Amino acid sequence: MSHNTYGHLFRVTTWGESHGIALGCVIDGCPPGIEFTEAEVQAYLDKRKPGQSKFTTQRREPDQVRVLSGVMPQDDGETLVTTGTPVCMMIQNTDQRSKDYSDIAKRYRPGHADFTYDVKYGIRDHRGGGRSSARETAARVAAGALARKVVPGLVVRGALVSMGTKEIDRDRWDWEEVNRNPFFTPDPQAAEEFADYLDAIRKAGSSVGAVIEVVAEGVPAGLGAPVYAKLDQDIASGLMSINAVKGVEIGNGFEAARIRGEENADEIRLDEYGNPSFLSNNAGGILGGISTGQPVVARFAVKPTSSILTPTRSITADGEETEVVTKGRHDPCVGIRAVPIGEAMVACAIADHYLRHRGQTGRI
Amino acid sequence: MSHNTYGHLFRVTTWGESHGIALGCVIDGCPPGIEFTEAEVQAYLDKRKPGQSKFTTQRREPDQVRVLSGVMPQDDGETLVTTGTPVCMMIQNTDQRSKDYSDIAKRYRPGHADFTYDVKYGIRDHRGGGRSSARETAARVAAGALARKVVPGLVVRGALVSMGTKEIDRDRWDWEEVNRNPFFTPDPQAAEEFADYLDAIRKAGSSVGAVIEVVAEGVPAGLGAPVYAKLDQDIASGLMSINAVKGVEIGNGFEAARIRGEENADEIRLDEYGNPSFLSNNAGGILGGISTGQPVVARFAVKPTSSILTPTRSITADGEETEVVTKGRHDPCVGIRAVPIGEAMVACAIADHYLRHRGQTGRI
Amino acid sequence: MSHNTYGHLFRVTTWGESHGIALGCVIDGCPPGIEFTEAEVQAYLDKRKPGQSKFTTQRREPDQVRVLSGVMPQDDGETLVTTGTPVCMMIQNTDQRSKDYSDIAKRYRPGHADFTYDVKYGIRDHRGGGRSSARETAARVAAGALARKVVPGLVVRGALVSMGTKEIDRDRWDWEEVNRNPFFTPDPQAAEEFADYLDAIRKAGSSVGAVIEVVAEGVPAGLGAPVYAKLDQDIASGLMSINAVKGVEIGNGFEAARIRGEENADEIRLDEYGNPSFLSNNAGGILGGISTGQPVVARFAVKPTSSILTPTRSITADGEETEVVTKGRHDPCVGIRAVPIGEAMVACAIADHYLRHRGQTGRI
Amino acid sequence: MSHNTYGHLFRVTTWGESHGIALGCVIDGCPPGIEFTEAEVQAYLDKRKPGQSKFTTQRREPDQVRVLSGVMPQDDGETLVTTGTPVCMMIQNTDQRSKDYSDIAKRYRPGHADFTYDVKYGIRDHRGGGRSSARETAARVAAGALARKVVPGLVVRGALVSMGTKEIDRDRWDWEEVNRNPFFTPDPQAAEEFADYLDAIRKAGSSVGAVIEVVAEGVPAGLGAPVYAKLDQDIASGLMSINAVKGVEIGNGFEAARIRGEENADEIRLDEYGNPSFLSNNAGGILGGISTGQPVVARFAVKPTSSILTPTRSITADGEETEVVTKGRHDPCVGIRAVPIGEAMVACAIADHYLRHRGQTGRI
Repeated sequence: MSHNTYGHLFRVTTWGESHGIALGCVIDGCPPGIEFTEAEVQAYLDKRKPGQSKFTTQRREPDQVRVLSGVMPQDDGETLVTTGTPVCMMIQNTDQRSKDYSDIAKRYRPGHADFTYDVKYGIRDHRGGGRSSARETAARVAAGALARKVVPGLVVRGALVSMGTKEIDRDRWDWEEVNRNPFFTPDPQAAEEFADYLDAIRKAGSSVGAVIEVVAEGVPAGLGAPVYAKLDQDIASGLMSINAVKGVEIGNGFEAARIRGEENADEIRLDEYGNPSFLSNNAGGILGGISTGQPVVARFAVKPTSSILTPTRSITADGEETEVVTKGRHDPCVGIRAVPIGEAMVACAIADHYLRHRGQTGRI
Repeated sequence: MSHNTYGHLFRVTTWGESHGIALGCVIDGCPPGIEFTEAEVQAYLDKRKPGQSKFTTQRREPDQVRVLSGVMPQDDGETLVTTGTPVCMMIQNTDQRSKDYSDIAKRYRPGHADFTYDVKYGIRDHRGGGRSSARETAARVAAGALARKVVPGLVVRGALVSMGTKEIDRDRWDWEEVNRNPFFTPDPQAAEEFADYLDAIRKAGSSVGAVIEVVAEGVPAGLGAPVYAKLDQDIASGLMSINAVKGVEIGNGFEAARIRGEENADEIRLDEYGNPSFLSNNAGGILGGISTGQPVVARFAVKPTSSILTPTRSITADGEETEVVTKGRHDPCVGIRAVPIGEAMVACAIADHYLRHRGQTGRI
Repeated sequence: MSHNTYGHLFRVTTWGESHGIALGCVIDGCPPGIEFTEAEVQAYLDKRKPGQSKFTTQRREPDQVRVLSGVMPQDDGETLVTTGTPVCMMIQNTDQRSKDYSDIAKRYRPGHADFTYDVKYGIRDHRGGGRSSARETAARVAAGALARKVVPGLVVRGALVSMGTKEIDRDRWDWEEVNRNPFFTPDPQAAEEFADYLDAIRKAGSSVGAVIEVVAEGVPAGLGAPVYAKLDQDIASGLMSINAVKGVEIGNGFEAARIRGEENADEIRLDEYGNPSFLSNNAGGILGGISTGQPVVARFAVKPTSSILTPTRSITADGEETEVVTKGRHDPCVGIRAVPIGEAMVACAIADHYLRHRGQTGRI
Repeated sequence: MSHNTYGHLFRVTTWGESHGIALGCVIDGCPPGIEFTEAEVQAYLDKRKPGQSKFTTQRREPDQVRVLSGVMPQDDGETLVTTGTPVCMMIQNTDQRSKDYSDIAKRYRPGHADFTYDVKYGIRDHRGGGRSSARETAARVAAGALARKVVPGLVVRGALVSMGTKEIDRDRWDWEEVNRNPFFTPDPQAAEEFADYLDAIRKAGSSVGAVIEVVAEGVPAGLGAPVYAKLDQDIASGLMSINAVKGVEIGNGFEAARIRGEENADEIRLDEYGNPSFLSNNAGGILGGISTGQPVVARFAVKPTSSILTPTRSITADGEETEVVTKGRHDPCVGIRAVPIGEAMVACAIADHYLRHRGQTGRI
């Protein structure tokens, strides 16, 4: 069933398709009194926007956001203040070249939702991927921009840590570097390798997957719950809801399955002020579903773009065998643009749990 | 915030702690007319039950389930038929040796939720892990037993595929073998290796992590949704909500991030009856959040048991530095008992989406 | 907390204020394959639109609806077909005469939400009633237009049955008449009386309340649930969520509290085809929260418009005593325009329960 | 669809039938640190318990509540402290005289949910009313006992204000009187009249309806929301979910539809301390869906007990015409026992909105 809402108190509902009139989100439950500008939201959207380098799709999507409701414009003509009512943000679709898709309208593109859409709904908007288009994620990024402001002091940053068989060297991690290269990767040397690597893949008409890491700092201890609605569970849910994501990890993730209890234990000491100080963060900032106050660390795996030039065998909606070659404008590595999306989902999960924790316990 | 409910139409709410009077679940939205017996539910609980081999905790938990509501007992005295109203199942706690925990009441066990509980709630039931105890999962397994019956033809099976640094050989995969060894592993040779490996770990007072794979067959195509409430998202959410889980994968998971588009594509042909036939299943049976009709495949990583004999540095609730050694009865590899729990969560997710799909589309 | 969503499977989220850029709704969970046109939705909006007679506010609100997502436009250029994804409908605000409100920005209008808004949020959009403005209900009416199409054969009609101290004569009930007079009342003679009555009230700068009755025919038996999420409960919730509503009745309502069991019983016989036939409908088509197949009948009481010319004593946001006189353009009887809104809420509740019933039981 | 949960942050899920093993509730989201005893809960259950006078059913239901989870027992052996995890309370069914129902197993009792149950589920527990039995409400009363403690200073009291054609005189309203007579009515003179009136009705094998008023004092201003999830909407939803309720009013309710704007306006002055002071409370303590700080006042109409000795015409499940006479032990006026149930629902709604308001705004 369709259930396009994420969150419980900070509720983000997204709507809209790649080839409809517009798309957007409704944020319900946002606290009143939060100041922001459309330009701030736009900055995050621009990060996600295609066509910024030869490594992302050349579609032009201005992705200009408009805030339609839930705010009081201030006298400066820029600042908006949330009123506590639903904030609707809209992005109009402008560059809808439907003809690119016409010859695949009836062919089920392997790796895409074409086949499953038809099975599920019996109707499919062949002009694009419908809701399965990565375009929907613009709405999430817009919502994430507001979510970041809900928790005072929260900083959520993402970075691409591997592309195909290439990985970064974590010793070279530099957050400043992330915004300097087209891959949102924190290792300048890896950025150069990725450029060559992806260029070859792009020219071959192929594609490749990637792993993105999101780190949230300034998360107060105590957010989450011990069983369902664990903070890590909701982050996993949010990240797995991003297109093309096939795996999610918290902290050391799958590595935890390979090591021993004494290696995995995050020991605790007191710092110079007598506050708890963890000596490591294998847990990724979450124990028993509840934040520890350490940085929350999550990673997710994005599969290679399914739209490739290499012909792949498939069938048509009419039950004929066929081959599919995608000629449209697509990203050789969709993982790149997933970085701001992953940030947005983590920010939304934390904002939601911040309000829930305050509601149930009054301890914030 | 506490929100102990999983699912939207097939709603499972669990309640109860390890050291309270009882624990259980309420299944709301179960279709009417489903026949089952307490013995069937019990069989799944017994799989999860501790004390079955030297490789799991020696606590004795009879885990005897009772169905309290939502059913019409039939004349045979065994069969129960659901009436469409909430099914409450209860398991009484009997072996509550609180004294094992007394000396750790004030010490924050690394890797446990002790610290985060105190930060969150300001109160903690030191007699056990409270809701963070793996004991809560008995309620999920009970719910899963009913979930399996909601979708006609559904078969959900789990298997342990790696333990620490040891992995199975997938060429030796034999589902029959899973129930023959204490590790729920499908590779008889690996079972022997796991036995030696875990024995040494247990004797050393250490612990180790594991990876579990769950495969659901008989899942109709069309379950799920293209954006939020994707079938894979809800499975990820359910698996990540299991204690000690740090990572979740669907299909080829993180491997997808390492390969190219043409390798990852699951090509489609027509079978001899003219039906769609996928030539591979990298997608794990889900495309665009919607089931394809192929087996749904999910994996999750369980961290090593945090309770170990090796002293670990920590602090007390009173802000003193201390060391923690766990003397209680614990599993050297909690991943083993996570197998039936993982099955249960996948079964619940599929049952829920089955009802949701039927509700929205009427296409089942 | 803000929670601007109504329904569980047919989920309507509304957003937007009276004096913002736009308002609208997102309908999530709408079945695929439903055909409709913007003109059909517009027809319902026009019914609710102000400025249609001297008996409703003279604000001009074109209330032109646009469907932004969730549909496939058909080749005729008019027909839209739902795709099963979220349908967002937007209505732009055009006639926002903020100055009318300027002098009451700081005064708490008795009967309005001004005071409670300030207490709750600490911020209030003084340009209008914010979300409390009846303008929000346009979004509901748009959603209701689609809800009506979800249940085959469903007909939902509303009528004004009393205004102040004047009541209709039910023996003169004529559904055709409802669309012939400006009061949506089914009794032509009452329509004339209402005209004189309300004219005098309007000229006196006063206002008056009304009672609206909504009748849904073609509701299949079996919708609803025995305890929470009863069909009548959800209808009551929907109607009570309409601005200025202070009471809700199902069937004979408060009259049921005055009569005896044998008078209240709806006896059942078999009709000529052997089908169950109720001899009366005191229950209003719902027994134990579940629809009987008879017409569903609900009534709701709308208080008199709070904005009146008579000065009323109040205080300012700064804690000064003051008097309030509303000079803006307002309805002398807001109950009139509540008729299509009540219809919409009943239609949405029934559509939601139709999908839920189909989901849980598969019996539709 | 079954959806047996009430509330959003203070979530009450009830389960259990009249003739099953047990019934109860799970309260999820209860704040930690709330002290209570089983005896306190029991006191409210005893109020609702049948068999206390000749005016209520003579069934004996000990209704002994047990708290199964979510609490830390204190050393005094009585006090329980909530831990923030789900509180499950259970009441075992002991007096299940199924034979009383045997001859009506196949007959659809007019006014009961027998017919609609069969249509909806295709299966019905003929041993009693299933979930439609008023017995389910014991679970609500238990939940309400805890809800009352969530909001500091909250006092929720209910009273029967009319029975059939007899009404109380509000000038004689005395809250102390409510607990002195078997009708929970605040007017001692009316109590005597009700006694004679109901005695005659009981002897005639008939039944009669009633109206109950619930008043909540100590409700902080600011709870609720301007559109959906209005405080009055959620109270209406809760009250309408009680068995046999056909109407709900807030404040002056249907009377508001009969009067003019200047009569209905609750004017505001400053009290001696400079605080806002309403001169009347037609609004019932709620404006625009948000609490004003005045007492919250709600009323609901309960229909006459459907089980009467007078034969009523009906049909059987096999499609035969028949007559139904109820011989079981039933209340001549179920409205009496609805008083503590109404209190419980109002308390739950207020507790829920208190937590939600604190969560979204942090203003408590």
